[in-house]
Amino acid sequence: MMGSMAHTIQMTGPLAPREGWVVDRCPMAATLEIVSTRSAFLIVREAFYGATRFEQFVERAQISEPVAAARLRELTDAGLLVREPYRDPGQRTRSEYHLTDKGADLAPTLIALMDWGDRWGVDGGARVQLRHAGCGAPVHTELRCANGHGVAAGEIELAVKRRR
Amino acid sequence: MMGSMAHTIQMTGPLAPREGWVVDRCPMAATLEIVSTRSAFLIVREAFYGATRFEQFVERAQISEPVAAARLRELTDAGLLVREPYRDPGQRTRSEYHLTDKGADLAPTLIALMDWGDRWGVDGGARVQLRHAGCGAPVHTELRCANGHGVAAGEIELAVKRRR
Repeated sequence: MMGSMAHTIQMTGPLAPREGWVVDRCPMAATLEIVSTRSAFLIVREAFYGATRFEQFVERAQISEPVAAARLRELTDAGLLVREPYRDPGQRTRSEYHLTDKGADLAPTLIALMDWGDRWGVDGGARVQLRHAGCGAPVHTELRCANGHGVAAGEIELAVKRRR
Repeated sequence: MMGSMAHTIQMTGPLAPREGWVVDRCPMAATLEIVSTRSAFLIVREAFYGATRFEQFVERAQISEPVAAARLRELTDAGLLVREPYRDPGQRTRSEYHLTDKGADLAPTLIALMDWGDRWGVDGGARVQLRHAGCGAPVHTELRCANGHGVAAGEIELAVKRRR
């Protein structure tokens, strides 16, 4: 398959030419410093699917107990999950984990990863799909501009953000 | 900040109750097996920004030469980048790297990661933004269903995919 210039994002204003600068405070890199591992994404996925307890994350994300403990601690410290106590009858108090608004705001990222994997990563595609509870139609991520236009990958420019 | 049930995705049909199954062939996990590291995402970002040559990826992604070499090889082997020969006058033949359709299809994922990092990961937000080349309005990822409705995170169901 040939690569193509049509895939690149056009540089504008002080960002052209590209050789004059190096990315600083990249928001994509910042996200990947906070949610940086496959196991972290699996934990967040299971939180979306309703897991709240340590053993549920271990079983459903299919990761080891030490990895689950490390990821739950990191995601809680970063404010994506919040820890709340619960106590089953006759047991000691334990912790449940729930998504915060910050954690739940990763939904478009997870769904974009799912969309790509469904098209390119899983032979025959995934077995499950996300649907709009209102109408039953499949849910995907789309690129859109603030004026409401659907945006193709080749129609994107990188620009210095306007200050408000 | 309190966590909330409103953030979870509702299970439907044979997927309810959640305790009856474990995720199999997850398309999100499949993507993260192919593009699994921060440095891989940085390489893909720079390919979108127009980098094609080894030294450009090293400089602009701010990663070491061995890491850049390993990631470029993995991304080429996985079909996200394609290698093409070039030769500067008086130099030996070298390789340029271009995004394939498969690699370029990661745009919504990268933009979803940028959107989240802009809101939550970078103090004061990012300095740059993506804009629609047609109209200049900022570009973001949105959740939408195939019927064209905007979808809020709390309106999503997980269902077994209908076979076509």
